[in-house]
Amino acid sequence: MATNLDCELCADPGGELLWEDDVCRVVRVGGAEGAAFPGYCRVICRQHVAEMSTLSAGDAHRVMDVVLATERALRFSVQPDKINLASLGNLVPHLHWHVIPRWRDDSHFPAPIWAAAQRSAKPRPVVGSARLQQALKTELSTLPE
Amino acid sequence: MATNLDCELCADPGGELLWEDDVCRVVRVGGAEGAAFPGYCRVICRQHVAEMSTLSAGDAHRVMDVVLATERALRFSVQPDKINLASLGNLVPHLHWHVIPRWRDDSHFPAPIWAAAQRSAKPRPVVGSARLQQALKTELSTLPE
Repeated sequence: MATNLDCELCADPGGELLWEDDVCRVVRVGGAEGAAFPGYCRVICRQHVAEMSTLSAGDAHRVMDVVLATERALRFSVQPDKINLASLGNLVPHLHWHVIPRWRDDSHFPAPIWAAAQRSAKPRPVVGSARLQQALKTELSTLPE
Repeated sequence: MATNLDCELCADPGGELLWEDDVCRVVRVGGAEGAAFPGYCRVICRQHVAEMSTLSAGDAHRVMDVVLATERALRFSVQPDKINLASLGNLVPHLHWHVIPRWRDDSHFPAPIWAAAQRSAKPRPVVGSARLQQALKTELSTLPE
Protein backbone atom coordinates (compact mmCIF):
# COMPACT_ATOMS: atom_id res chain seq x y z
CA MET A 1 0.00 0.00 0.00
CA ALA A 2 1.58 3.27 -1.13
CA THR A 3 1.81 5.89 1.63
CA ASN A 4 3.63 9.20 1.85
CA LEU A 5 5.15 10.36 5.14
CA ASP A 6 4.62 14.01 4.28
CA CYS A 7 0.94 13.61 3.47
CA GLU A 8 -1.63 14.68 6.06
CA LEU A 9 -4.22 12.20 4.75
CA CYS A 10 -1.71 9.34 5.08
CA ALA A 11 -0.87 10.46 8.63
CA ASP A 12 -4.28 11.47 10.02
CA PRO A 13 -7.91 10.40 9.54
CA GLY A 14 -8.81 13.89 8.24
CA GLY A 15 -12.05 14.10 10.24
CA GLU A 16 -14.24 12.04 12.54
CA LEU A 17 -14.01 8.45 11.35
CA LEU A 18 -17.44 7.00 10.51
CA TRP A 19 -16.43 3.88 8.55
CA GLU A 20 -13.47 2.26 6.81
CA ASP A 21 -12.42 -0.76 4.81
CA ASP A 22 -9.25 -1.77 2.95
CA VAL A 23 -9.88 0.68 0.10
CA CYS A 24 -11.18 3.87 1.71
CA ARG A 25 -12.67 5.54 4.78
CA VAL A 26 -15.57 7.91 5.38
CA VAL A 27 -14.97 10.84 7.74
CA ARG A 28 -17.22 13.62 8.89
CA VAL A 29 -16.01 17.17 8.35
CA GLY A 30 -16.00 19.38 11.47
CA GLY A 31 -15.39 23.07 12.11
CA ALA A 32 -17.09 25.90 10.25
CA GLU A 33 -17.63 23.82 7.10
CA GLY A 34 -19.29 21.06 9.08
CA ALA A 35 -21.53 23.60 10.82
CA ALA A 36 -22.53 25.35 7.58
CA PHE A 37 -23.18 22.06 5.74
CA PRO A 38 -24.19 19.58 8.46
CA GLY A 39 -23.37 16.05 7.46
CA TYR A 40 -20.54 17.10 5.10
CA CYS A 41 -18.36 13.98 4.66
CA ARG A 42 -15.19 13.05 2.86
CA VAL A 43 -14.39 9.66 1.38
CA ILE A 44 -10.64 9.23 1.55
CA CYS A 45 -8.75 6.61 -0.42
CA ARG A 46 -6.35 4.51 1.65
CA GLN A 47 -3.68 4.46 -1.07
CA HIS A 48 -1.65 7.62 -1.60
CA VAL A 49 -2.61 8.35 -5.21
CA ALA A 50 -3.49 11.74 -6.67
CA GLU A 51 -6.01 10.81 -9.35
CA MET A 52 -9.05 8.54 -9.39
CA SER A 53 -7.99 7.12 -12.78
CA THR A 54 -4.76 5.80 -11.23
CA LEU A 55 -6.77 3.25 -9.22
CA SER A 56 -7.57 -0.17 -10.64
CA ALA A 57 -11.07 -0.39 -12.17
CA GLY A 58 -12.19 -2.47 -9.19
CA ASP A 59 -10.90 0.00 -6.58
CA ALA A 60 -12.34 2.97 -8.53
CA HIS A 61 -15.77 1.31 -8.56
CA ARG A 62 -15.45 0.53 -4.85
CA VAL A 63 -14.54 4.14 -3.99
CA MET A 64 -17.44 5.45 -6.11
CA ASP A 65 -19.83 2.92 -4.50
CA VAL A 66 -18.80 4.23 -1.08
CA VAL A 67 -19.18 7.86 -2.26
CA LEU A 68 -22.70 7.05 -3.51
CA ALA A 69 -23.60 5.15 -0.33
CA THR A 70 -22.50 8.27 1.58
CA GLU A 71 -24.59 10.42 -0.77
CA ARG A 72 -27.64 8.20 -0.12
CA ALA A 73 -27.04 8.23 3.64
CA LEU A 74 -26.95 12.05 3.59
CA ARG A 75 -30.04 12.30 1.42
CA PHE A 76 -31.85 10.10 3.91
CA SER A 77 -30.56 11.52 7.17
CA VAL A 78 -30.17 15.27 6.51
CA GLN A 79 -32.53 15.68 3.53
CA PRO A 80 -30.64 18.39 1.64
CA ASP A 81 -31.94 20.08 -1.52
CA LYS A 82 -28.89 18.91 -3.47
CA ILE A 83 -25.70 16.91 -3.10
CA ASN A 84 -22.37 18.15 -4.47
CA LEU A 85 -19.56 15.68 -5.21
CA ALA A 86 -15.99 16.68 -5.94
CA SER A 87 -12.49 15.26 -6.09
CA LEU A 88 -10.07 18.18 -6.35
CA GLY A 89 -6.85 17.56 -4.41
CA ASN A 90 -4.93 20.60 -5.62
CA LEU A 91 -3.70 21.34 -2.09
CA VAL A 92 -3.59 17.78 -0.74
CA PRO A 93 -2.90 15.46 -3.69
CA HIS A 94 -4.19 12.33 -1.94
CA LEU A 95 -7.44 11.12 -3.50
CA HIS A 96 -10.43 12.26 -1.44
CA TRP A 97 -14.03 12.93 -2.35
CA HIS A 98 -16.13 15.73 -0.90
CA VAL A 99 -19.76 14.72 -0.34
CA ILE A 100 -21.52 17.96 0.52
CA PRO A 101 -25.18 18.42 1.40
CA ARG A 102 -26.55 21.71 0.05
CA TRP A 103 -29.66 23.74 0.82
CA ARG A 104 -31.22 26.50 -1.26
CA ASP A 105 -30.73 28.97 1.60
CA ASP A 106 -27.21 27.87 2.61
CA SER A 107 -24.36 30.39 2.67
CA HIS A 108 -23.25 29.79 -0.94
CA PHE A 109 -26.15 28.30 -2.89
CA PRO A 110 -26.36 28.01 -5.88
CA ALA A 111 -22.61 28.62 -6.14
CA PRO A 112 -20.13 25.90 -5.17
CA ILE A 113 -18.96 26.12 -1.55
CA TRP A 114 -15.54 27.30 -2.72
CA ALA A 115 -16.96 30.47 -4.33
CA ALA A 116 -17.63 33.68 -2.38
CA ALA A 117 -20.41 33.36 0.19
CA GLN A 118 -23.71 34.87 -0.93
CA ARG A 119 -25.26 35.27 2.53
CA SER A 120 -24.61 34.45 6.19
CA ALA A 121 -24.69 30.79 7.16
CA LYS A 122 -28.12 29.89 8.57
CA PRO A 123 -28.04 27.83 11.77
CA ARG A 124 -29.13 24.29 10.93
CA PRO A 125 -30.15 21.36 13.09
CA VAL A 126 -27.17 19.32 14.21
CA VAL A 127 -27.25 15.76 12.92
CA GLY A 128 -25.71 13.32 15.36
CA SER A 129 -22.80 11.27 14.07
CA ALA A 130 -24.40 8.09 15.43
CA ARG A 131 -27.42 8.68 13.19
CA LEU A 132 -25.23 9.42 10.19
CA GLN A 133 -23.11 6.35 10.89
CA GLN A 134 -26.22 4.16 11.10
CA ALA A 135 -27.57 5.51 7.79
CA LEU A 136 -24.17 4.92 6.20
CA LYS A 137 -24.00 1.37 7.57
CA THR A 138 -27.44 0.62 6.14
CA GLU A 139 -26.46 1.93 2.69
CA LEU A 140 -23.06 0.20 2.71
CA SER A 141 -24.65 -3.11 3.67
CA THR A 142 -26.35 -3.24 0.26
CA LEU A 143 -23.01 -3.04 -1.60
CA PRO A 144 -21.19 -6.13 -2.85
CA GLU A 145 -18.05 -6.90 -0.77
CA MET B 1 -35.85 7.83 -20.72
CA ALA B 2 -36.79 10.73 -18.43
CA THR B 3 -36.39 14.14 -20.05
CA ASN B 4 -37.49 17.61 -18.97
CA LEU B 5 -38.61 20.16 -21.54
CA ASP B 6 -37.35 23.08 -19.43
CA CYS B 7 -33.87 21.64 -18.96
CA GLU B 8 -31.03 23.03 -21.08
CA LEU B 9 -29.07 19.77 -20.87
CA CYS B 10 -32.10 17.80 -22.13
CA ALA B 11 -32.56 20.29 -25.00
CA ASP B 12 -28.95 21.01 -26.03
CA PRO B 13 -25.63 19.11 -26.13
CA GLY B 14 -24.08 21.64 -23.69
CA GLY B 15 -20.79 21.87 -25.59
CA GLU B 16 -18.99 20.40 -28.58
CA LEU B 17 -20.01 16.75 -28.76
CA LEU B 18 -16.99 14.42 -28.65
CA TRP B 19 -18.68 11.08 -27.93
CA GLU B 20 -21.99 9.59 -26.78
CA ASP B 21 -23.72 6.33 -25.97
CA ASP B 22 -27.10 5.40 -24.49
CA VAL B 23 -26.10 6.44 -20.96
CA CYS B 24 -24.10 9.67 -21.35
CA ARG B 25 -22.17 11.98 -23.66
CA VAL B 26 -18.82 13.76 -23.47
CA VAL B 27 -18.72 17.40 -24.57
CA ARG B 28 -15.90 19.88 -24.71
CA VAL B 29 -16.37 23.17 -22.88
CA GLY B 30 -15.80 26.29 -24.98
CA GLY B 31 -15.59 30.02 -24.23
CA ALA B 32 -13.44 31.58 -21.53
CA GLU B 33 -13.46 28.42 -19.36
CA GLY B 34 -12.33 26.30 -22.28
CA ALA B 35 -9.54 28.78 -23.07
CA ALA B 36 -8.33 28.97 -19.45
CA PHE B 37 -8.46 25.18 -18.96
CA PRO B 38 -7.87 23.72 -22.43
CA GLY B 39 -9.44 20.32 -22.75
CA TYR B 40 -12.09 20.97 -20.05
CA CYS B 41 -14.88 18.44 -20.69
CA ARG B 42 -18.25 17.61 -19.23
CA VAL B 43 -19.77 14.15 -19.05
CA ILE B 44 -23.53 14.58 -19.23
CA CYS B 45 -26.00 11.88 -18.27
CA ARG B 46 -28.69 11.23 -20.87
CA GLN B 47 -31.42 10.74 -18.26
CA HIS B 48 -32.76 13.83 -16.52
CA VAL B 49 -31.83 12.98 -12.94
CA ALA B 50 -30.31 15.34 -10.39
CA GLU B 51 -28.17 13.00 -8.32
CA MET B 52 -25.65 10.29 -9.23
CA SER B 53 -27.12 7.99 -6.56
CA THR B 54 -30.48 8.03 -8.35
CA LEU B 55 -28.96 6.04 -11.23
CA SER B 56 -28.94 2.24 -11.19
CA ALA B 57 -25.64 0.76 -9.98
CA GLY B 58 -24.85 -0.26 -13.57
CA ASP B 59 -25.50 3.19 -15.03
CA ALA B 60 -23.56 4.88 -12.20
CA HIS B 61 -20.54 2.65 -12.91
CA ARG B 62 -20.87 3.37 -16.62
CA VAL B 63 -20.98 7.14 -16.08
CA MET B 64 -17.95 6.96 -13.75
CA ASP B 65 -16.07 4.76 -16.26
CA VAL B 66 -16.68 7.42 -18.93
CA VAL B 67 -15.60 10.19 -16.51
CA LEU B 68 -12.38 8.29 -15.79
CA ALA B 69 -11.77 7.54 -19.48
CA THR B 70 -12.13 11.29 -20.07
CA GLU B 71 -9.72 11.94 -17.19
CA ARG B 72 -7.18 9.54 -18.72
CA ALA B 73 -7.61 11.06 -22.19
CA LEU B 74 -6.93 14.53 -20.74
CA ARG B 75 -3.92 13.33 -18.76
CA PHE B 76 -2.50 11.87 -21.95
CA SER B 77 -3.36 14.60 -24.40
CA VAL B 78 -2.99 17.85 -22.42
CA GLN B 79 -0.72 16.66 -19.59
CA PRO B 80 -2.07 18.82 -16.78
CA ASP B 81 -0.58 18.94 -13.27
CA LYS B 82 -3.88 17.79 -11.76
CA ILE B 83 -7.40 16.77 -12.69
CA ASN B 84 -10.45 18.07 -10.85
CA LEU B 85 -13.73 16.14 -10.94
CA ALA B 86 -17.06 17.53 -9.76
CA SER B 87 -20.77 16.90 -10.00
CA LEU B 88 -22.54 19.95 -8.60
CA GLY B 89 -25.75 20.76 -10.51
CA ASN B 90 -27.04 23.47 -8.21
CA LEU B 91 -27.96 25.68 -11.16
CA VAL B 92 -28.74 22.96 -13.71
CA PRO B 93 -30.02 19.93 -11.78
CA HIS B 94 -29.34 17.46 -14.59
CA LEU B 95 -26.48 15.12 -13.71
CA HIS B 96 -23.24 16.28 -15.34
CA TRP B 97 -19.60 15.84 -14.37
CA HIS B 98 -16.92 18.46 -14.79
CA VAL B 99 -13.55 17.01 -15.83
CA ILE B 100 -11.13 19.90 -15.52
CA PRO B 101 -7.41 19.88 -16.32
CA ARG B 102 -5.46 22.10 -13.92
CA TRP B 103 -1.97 23.59 -14.01
CA ARG B 104 0.04 25.03 -11.14
CA ASP B 105 0.17 28.40 -12.89
CA ASP B 106 -3.44 28.49 -14.09
CA SER B 107 -5.72 31.39 -13.12
CA HIS B 108 -7.08 29.75 -9.94
CA PHE B 109 -4.60 27.11 -8.76
CA PRO B 110 -4.58 25.71 -6.10
CA ALA B 111 -8.14 26.93 -5.50
CA PRO B 112 -11.09 25.32 -7.28
CA ILE B 113 -12.04 27.09 -10.52
CA TRP B 114 -15.20 28.44 -8.85
CA ALA B 115 -13.21 30.44 -6.27
CA ALA B 116 -11.82 33.92 -6.94
CA ALA B 117 -9.07 34.00 -9.57
CA GLN B 118 -5.56 34.29 -8.11
CA ARG B 119 -3.85 35.59 -11.24
CA SER B 120 -4.50 36.31 -14.93
CA ALA B 121 -5.14 33.33 -17.16
CA LYS B 122 -1.93 32.32 -18.94
CA PRO B 123 -2.29 31.63 -22.67
CA ARG B 124 -1.99 27.88 -23.20
CA PRO B 125 -1.49 25.79 -26.31
CA VAL B 126 -4.78 24.94 -27.99
CA VAL B 127 -5.48 21.23 -28.09
CA GLY B 128 -7.38 20.22 -31.19
CA SER B 129 -10.71 18.48 -30.62
CA ALA B 130 -9.75 15.75 -33.10
CA ARG B 131 -6.76 14.86 -30.93
CA LEU B 132 -8.88 14.89 -27.78
CA GLN B 133 -11.54 12.79 -29.47
CA GLN B 134 -8.95 10.24 -30.58
CA ALA B 135 -7.49 9.98 -27.07
CA LEU B 136 -10.99 9.56 -25.67
CA LYS B 137 -11.84 6.88 -28.24
CA THR B 138 -8.70 4.97 -27.29
CA GLU B 139 -9.51 5.10 -23.57
CA LEU B 140 -13.18 4.25 -24.09
CA SER B 141 -12.28 1.26 -26.26
CA THR B 142 -10.78 -0.45 -23.19
CA LEU B 143 -14.07 -0.28 -21.25
CA PRO B 144 -16.55 -3.15 -21.15
CA GLU B 145 -19.68 -2.42 -23.26
